[in-house]
Amino acid sequence: MVGQFSPAFRDELVTLMRWRRDVRRFRTDPVPEDVLARCLETLSLAPSVGLSEPWRILRVLSPSSRAACLANFRDCNARALDGLDGAKAATYSRLKLSGMAEAPIQLAVFCDDTTTKGSGLGAATMPETRAYSVVGAITLLWLALRAEGLGLGWVSILDPDRLARDLDVPPGWRFIGYLCIGWPEKDDMVPELEREGWESRSPALHLETR
Amino acid sequence: MVGQFSPAFRDELVTLMRWRRDVRRFRTDPVPEDVLARCLETLSLAPSVGLSEPWRILRVLSPSSRAACLANFRDCNARALDGLDGAKAATYSRLKLSGMAEAPIQLAVFCDDTTTKGSGLGAATMPETRAYSVVGAITLLWLALRAEGLGLGWVSILDPDRLARDLDVPPGWRFIGYLCIGWPEKDDMVPELEREGWESRSPALHLETR
Repeated sequence: MVGQFSPAFRDELVTLMRWRRDVRRFRTDPVPEDVLARCLETLSLAPSVGLSEPWRILRVLSPSSRAACLANFRDCNARALDGLDGAKAATYSRLKLSGMAEAPIQLAVFCDDTTTKGSGLGAATMPETRAYSVVGAITLLWLALRAEGLGLGWVSILDPDRLARDLDVPPGWRFIGYLCIGWPEKDDMVPELEREGWESRSPALHLETR
Repeated sequence: MVGQFSPAFRDELVTLMRWRRDVRRFRTDPVPEDVLARCLETLSLAPSVGLSEPWRILRVLSPSSRAACLANFRDCNARALDGLDGAKAATYSRLKLSGMAEAPIQLAVFCDDTTTKGSGLGAATMPETRAYSVVGAITLLWLALRAEGLGLGWVSILDPDRLARDLDVPPGWRFIGYLCIGWPEKDDMVPELEREGWESRSPALHLETR
């Protein structure tokens, strides 16, 4: 029956989640446009507060736009390194934290905080739920890409105001994340930050009750 | 090969995304604890900024906690209705916007904005990415539940400060969403807000380029 899923599918869904990584090391060979297009369709399948569908996506294509975003990242990343001491600074400086210099597909993702779609339903006490809707959409895209063998890296080491100016973004659009997409150099089940000794994953989740 | 996915799996993944709904109408029969537990494990598979894993989950079990959260929702929902006129108010008053009175499983989800895990990596210019990490985790849980035939409804028509007080939440935890979980009364491919004439989904996504 439609809308019913098998144990085998559920297992494979968890396997997909286990192999999903934040990818920063991309091969430079192109991503077929039809593959990208069908992955992008999953954005529209995301839940959104009040059916507001506030996701707004810019495809960053031109060399000048890419250069501006990369310079933004490099400045913010240098400042982040300046704020660290000793061993932590040494580890940080070894990390590769974005694939912006190489990734064949780059998307700047925004939330239209001014949209009237949905008439504000669900967002009166928590307007941030519009941004959360955009994050849910990115999460679906991430899984769809990974299922195609593609990697996504979410870059947040950026000055949002500078990025909005550089990309001539409409007023009212809130920057959510900069997505690098392409074929990963390699697949891995372990996050790069764990492999490089920055941080490790926690054991099982603990739920408190109330 | 591990980490490779077939076209058939990819199709079924999109089918799952198409059947995922925000559910507000639940049957009251219980959810087996082992099914819930394996769905909750997917929260830990979510990407998180700097590997900060800032998700904090309270399972809302006691009648007094549930009553406090339900009263919070009812007050906020009444205020939202007061702000609407005419036909929109009439439509709004017909909507069922939470399953908090019925859902067998209820979770209050928070983001620990004070966590030192991840040492702030990626969150210096955009501290909101910690909350976004929690939203990604909820999105994975949503899919895992739906793959089991379970529904999730995300309630945001709540006063976050009141909820934090009522549930005696540690300082520094930011409220992200209240999740109702259970067996849906029925499965549907069309969002309830669309069926009830509140809002409709957009046609295909349009990407601008820069």
